[in-house]
Amino acid sequence: MSSTWGNNIKVSIFGQSHSEAIGVCVDGFPAGEGVDVAELERFLRRRAPGHDPMSTARCEADRPKILCGVVNGVTCGAPFAAIIENTDTRSGDYADLIDVPRPSHADYPAHVKYKGFQDVRGGGHFSGRLTAPLCIAGGICLQILRRRGIEICAHIASVGNVEDERFTPLGVSEAEIKTLSEKKFAVINDAQGAQMQQDILRAKSEGDSIGGSIECIIQGVPAGIGGPLFGGLDGALSVAMFGVPAVKGVEFGDGFACTRLRGSEHNDPYRIKDGRVVTKSNHAGGILGGISTGMPILLHVAIKPTASIAIEQESVSLSAMENRNLTILGRHDPCIVPRAVPVIEAAAAIAILDALPNTNI
Amino acid sequence: MSSTWGNNIKVSIFGQSHSEAIGVCVDGFPAGEGVDVAELERFLRRRAPGHDPMSTARCEADRPKILCGVVNGVTCGAPFAAIIENTDTRSGDYADLIDVPRPSHADYPAHVKYKGFQDVRGGGHFSGRLTAPLCIAGGICLQILRRRGIEICAHIASVGNVEDERFTPLGVSEAEIKTLSEKKFAVINDAQGAQMQQDILRAKSEGDSIGGSIECIIQGVPAGIGGPLFGGLDGALSVAMFGVPAVKGVEFGDGFACTRLRGSEHNDPYRIKDGRVVTKSNHAGGILGGISTGMPILLHVAIKPTASIAIEQESVSLSAMENRNLTILGRHDPCIVPRAVPVIEAAAAIAILDALPNTNI
Amino acid sequence: MSSTWGNNIKVSIFGQSHSEAIGVCVDGFPAGEGVDVAELERFLRRRAPGHDPMSTARCEADRPKILCGVVNGVTCGAPFAAIIENTDTRSGDYADLIDVPRPSHADYPAHVKYKGFQDVRGGGHFSGRLTAPLCIAGGICLQILRRRGIEICAHIASVGNVEDERFTPLGVSEAEIKTLSEKKFAVINDAQGAQMQQDILRAKSEGDSIGGSIECIIQGVPAGIGGPLFGGLDGALSVAMFGVPAVKGVEFGDGFACTRLRGSEHNDPYRIKDGRVVTKSNHAGGILGGISTGMPILLHVAIKPTASIAIEQESVSLSAMENRNLTILGRHDPCIVPRAVPVIEAAAAIAILDALPNTNI
Amino acid sequence: MSSTWGNNIKVSIFGQSHSEAIGVCVDGFPAGEGVDVAELERFLRRRAPGHDPMSTARCEADRPKILCGVVNGVTCGAPFAAIIENTDTRSGDYADLIDVPRPSHADYPAHVKYKGFQDVRGGGHFSGRLTAPLCIAGGICLQILRRRGIEICAHIASVGNVEDERFTPLGVSEAEIKTLSEKKFAVINDAQGAQMQQDILRAKSEGDSIGGSIECIIQGVPAGIGGPLFGGLDGALSVAMFGVPAVKGVEFGDGFACTRLRGSEHNDPYRIKDGRVVTKSNHAGGILGGISTGMPILLHVAIKPTASIAIEQESVSLSAMENRNLTILGRHDPCIVPRAVPVIEAAAAIAILDALPNTNI
Repeated sequence: MSSTWGNNIKVSIFGQSHSEAIGVCVDGFPAGEGVDVAELERFLRRRAPGHDPMSTARCEADRPKILCGVVNGVTCGAPFAAIIENTDTRSGDYADLIDVPRPSHADYPAHVKYKGFQDVRGGGHFSGRLTAPLCIAGGICLQILRRRGIEICAHIASVGNVEDERFTPLGVSEAEIKTLSEKKFAVINDAQGAQMQQDILRAKSEGDSIGGSIECIIQGVPAGIGGPLFGGLDGALSVAMFGVPAVKGVEFGDGFACTRLRGSEHNDPYRIKDGRVVTKSNHAGGILGGISTGMPILLHVAIKPTASIAIEQESVSLSAMENRNLTILGRHDPCIVPRAVPVIEAAAAIAILDALPNTNI
Repeated sequence: MSSTWGNNIKVSIFGQSHSEAIGVCVDGFPAGEGVDVAELERFLRRRAPGHDPMSTARCEADRPKILCGVVNGVTCGAPFAAIIENTDTRSGDYADLIDVPRPSHADYPAHVKYKGFQDVRGGGHFSGRLTAPLCIAGGICLQILRRRGIEICAHIASVGNVEDERFTPLGVSEAEIKTLSEKKFAVINDAQGAQMQQDILRAKSEGDSIGGSIECIIQGVPAGIGGPLFGGLDGALSVAMFGVPAVKGVEFGDGFACTRLRGSEHNDPYRIKDGRVVTKSNHAGGILGGISTGMPILLHVAIKPTASIAIEQESVSLSAMENRNLTILGRHDPCIVPRAVPVIEAAAAIAILDALPNTNI
Repeated sequence: MSSTWGNNIKVSIFGQSHSEAIGVCVDGFPAGEGVDVAELERFLRRRAPGHDPMSTARCEADRPKILCGVVNGVTCGAPFAAIIENTDTRSGDYADLIDVPRPSHADYPAHVKYKGFQDVRGGGHFSGRLTAPLCIAGGICLQILRRRGIEICAHIASVGNVEDERFTPLGVSEAEIKTLSEKKFAVINDAQGAQMQQDILRAKSEGDSIGGSIECIIQGVPAGIGGPLFGGLDGALSVAMFGVPAVKGVEFGDGFACTRLRGSEHNDPYRIKDGRVVTKSNHAGGILGGISTGMPILLHVAIKPTASIAIEQESVSLSAMENRNLTILGRHDPCIVPRAVPVIEAAAAIAILDALPNTNI
Repeated sequence: MSSTWGNNIKVSIFGQSHSEAIGVCVDGFPAGEGVDVAELERFLRRRAPGHDPMSTARCEADRPKILCGVVNGVTCGAPFAAIIENTDTRSGDYADLIDVPRPSHADYPAHVKYKGFQDVRGGGHFSGRLTAPLCIAGGICLQILRRRGIEICAHIASVGNVEDERFTPLGVSEAEIKTLSEKKFAVINDAQGAQMQQDILRAKSEGDSIGGSIECIIQGVPAGIGGPLFGGLDGALSVAMFGVPAVKGVEFGDGFACTRLRGSEHNDPYRIKDGRVVTKSNHAGGILGGISTGMPILLHVAIKPTASIAIEQESVSLSAMENRNLTILGRHDPCIVPRAVPVIEAAAAIAILDALPNTNI
């Protein structure tokens, strides 16, 4: 069990919310790949906090410092490492949490696993802040994949009971992808987006939080990537998704909706189009038998409501082993979904680059 | 990408639907564990075909032949291997499929991945038949886990639009587990089960198939198992689940339903009970931050409708690269869900045993 | 710690000396590779026992039964598995060894590791017999590598104090490789070989055994295979070598002799030859910084004298925890070196195929 | 193939000789282990350059900056990461090497592997400087192992033709270990050490370099650690050893000398001593069948003469593809052996900690 992951590329994410620095090491990037730092920083800003009333007030510059693996803007084949120094930390806010675990946070299971030695300040290694180095690694993967004709794009599929439109399963245009990636609130239908934002602010004003979901499309993956049984591309993507804090469900294509369908409705007929084998529909979401079909890969993940809420909650004192009420101070996102959109893209990008045959290695 | 999996235990599943034999090798079972073959065969019969009108007419004895790793009924520390010889195969039925891929089967992506060399007879390595060796490995894992106080139990949560009751998230009794594991059609509510069986037979009579879902509870896992980020117990379980053919979605606890909740509704308050830390509710499904909380682990998986249907379908000729219609012969389950129940248990058992600290190694 | 190994290909060796069968599963062979069974059986016969007075009298047919992964003589992309059924076993000979560990065998450490549950009959999983499935896997790797222009050839470099000539570090001819692979006693210099055989028979007649060493050349590996630090091709080959029972040392190129040299003597100057970069000498043995240079890879392994000797030895009773003398019955090779030659080739082949970028996966 | 390694602990070493920083991430240190930074810095100083006339004049402070994984001097269970910032770099010296590879360095194979994009300054990722982060990881492993009763100690076994005494195979005293670890030139016999130093200085004065070897003893490893075949503790240690630049051979116990012995000479008889099973001799070097015997583990590694020498050498121009002579400027150790002693200890410590059952995970 580890924070290190992958086969063709090994991604090691390190750091705690309030440690000296957080960062990532990636062993296995192909040599000779351009790393556009400005583009990477734009990508990172999409998950950075502190930009609007819906996200935590903690403000981090989140500028990655590349330590190695890149020479003159190009990967050199040696492991890549980058860090973000932690600056704006207010550890005092968390002093009380050492003994009283926050409900639905990792505090209690981490306390057991690490025998009481875990870093509780700001959630330690379990902080959502660790998605920043994940986005550094994933952001570079996205740049490499784009050069191989693979685009990854996610959007807010729902917040509470408000749903966005869904991607067309047969594929979306470059223009749609560009538009979405530049939106502050990444929805296809802005009217629905406005409703979502209202619901988030209402939850916030009530000291509460709200859940939602994210849809992600991966276009341009050639047919034949992945493998049977435990080597499936769906399995690999799901590990990446569950690696993102707060994800509670992952589905591909029609996902759980397929359970209500007949085979005659769900099967995707093959056709020849422009000399290529394609499917007329894409209920499968681009993966069959663990292997990519060449159609767009569609996945949808459930994001739970932020566990940190201002409302007083029931908990326990681990030292006294008695019930105790808890009021969480600190700064928290009332809904993690908007900031999680690029994180889902990053996690998907890591899984896809890892699954591609890497002729550079 | 591989059919070999695990960290503390390495499970390698091999075989094709119509090869000489199918089987499994497991490296890493702790030494000194009793292997109850009669119990294992009872478990395997739960997934074996040919027992009722709802499943494929192919009849395989499915009796595992243990080759090594067990001496006098006890694991000896050396790798375990067992095979099932293939006997009742009718390769002729599939002769036509070499060129015309079955919609929503792995035929086409496997054709691309293996450059046309894959074994197409009966789905080859992608056949549901490969879940038999998975159940051999998982069946032994279940026996080992039971001795460590861990019980795993699954049931048919839905078929089409008919839903079974759900497990009580705070845990089910030994008696309920025993009853479910002995039912021919593993539902909690038999009236709903009867309705499901009608729907399956109706689909069959129309040459069609139908999807469904399975819920699985894992009780007795101590708090502290798993890890952050990509090392999560949820991620590990999801790989195991997506390793089961036809699974299209995996969710833990409330899963996708959590997206509609407020934090105040979804958070599980801690309480002290009998000197132990427990949660009052279990929306999280027993996992927080990738680590077990000590509460029951609840997962729910979507199973797509069987891809093989008797109704004529559109496909293509891969040699001629032109459209072609296809009628699938052969014997197929109109709904894979009932037989997948023990497979889900087996896959979960492998993931859990792999995640436990193995003091025997 | 496991009997499963590899990155691009996963090799799982299973079985005990006296279990129902021994065998191997290989996940990851490229699809579309011809498997010449007759050639494989010829290769296996080179390590098979029972052919001459120098090897154990145990006679096994050692004919592999391929279970899956090959269709019409060609790999199909699915995992390969093959077994050899154990027939000529005389477990009675080993009855006494359960309590009294044989000196310099794995008996005692395996007893501790497996808490007394290990299979002691014939050495169980630690028997030299397990090199047969290793040779099945390696034999197919050799066939695949040959099609990629890579040849692997080993010979007996020494037995006791008698040394064979060494390979020319800049490469050997096809003819030399062919000759060596067909020799019953694989030495370059037959006169030295005759002397070695005398020494082996003398050791045998005295109830004793004798050690030796094997040199292996790997030709045709392109430059650029391997990696820095723990990802070195030398490290990968050394794990494969130490995976062969009785190996106690591994060296590349000049190996330990390089410790006595000056840099000016040991460095290999580069030259251009026929438009390619080559080295004038090959003290490095074809690997620099963990990466192949394109020159032949030369490795040399030390094989200890067979631990099983007829002479009475000092040991202990594990149950009584008191000193006990031991006389080993059973049939044993007085020198394992001759039969280990193809095993070293097989192990090297697995490591090399695993290290090559596998564009088929 | 990667710079990331291990099973229970994952060690990722990153950085190039002249990159912003070099460092290491270790995922899997048990939580609750004290990290004595002063002790770690003492250990690092043993490999640091610039302290005497025998080593490179490059002077680096080599003070590690711990980024995360340690809270109040104790591991917290989250990944550990530390970096050393590169300060005293003179890239100019290497400008010429981009096109003309240094003989017996990784320059040429790295050029091929990384398609010309590798960082050539100072050897890039292949620089001996990368052993500094290896020593950070290994230095902490040593501290953890010591608390489990395991001591690791290495010394210079030979330089050129001058040999030090060897460790007593049945074990060395605490006092001997302490004395050796504090010596500036780590030999048992100081008279031999003086002779070695003379030979090193003579090689240096002639613009040349010289090889040598290092012996390492690992005491206190309980019996039963490791595994059969590719899971051997000897295999794991050998990968760690070949992970150290310039290592060309690894042997355990008698190593290559065992090839000249009879079984009756080489076998280690068992005896009961103080209620424990021990061996009277330790030719095996503490490992049988890949598993520790409980006796001291003895390993011996060959270190080649430093490839960088001042004498003019033959090489080629990779751009012009023609022969070219080369004179290497820059600062280099005439003999890497003395500084490699703690590196061997560090590498061994990583392999041993990784092999131990980690009940904390």
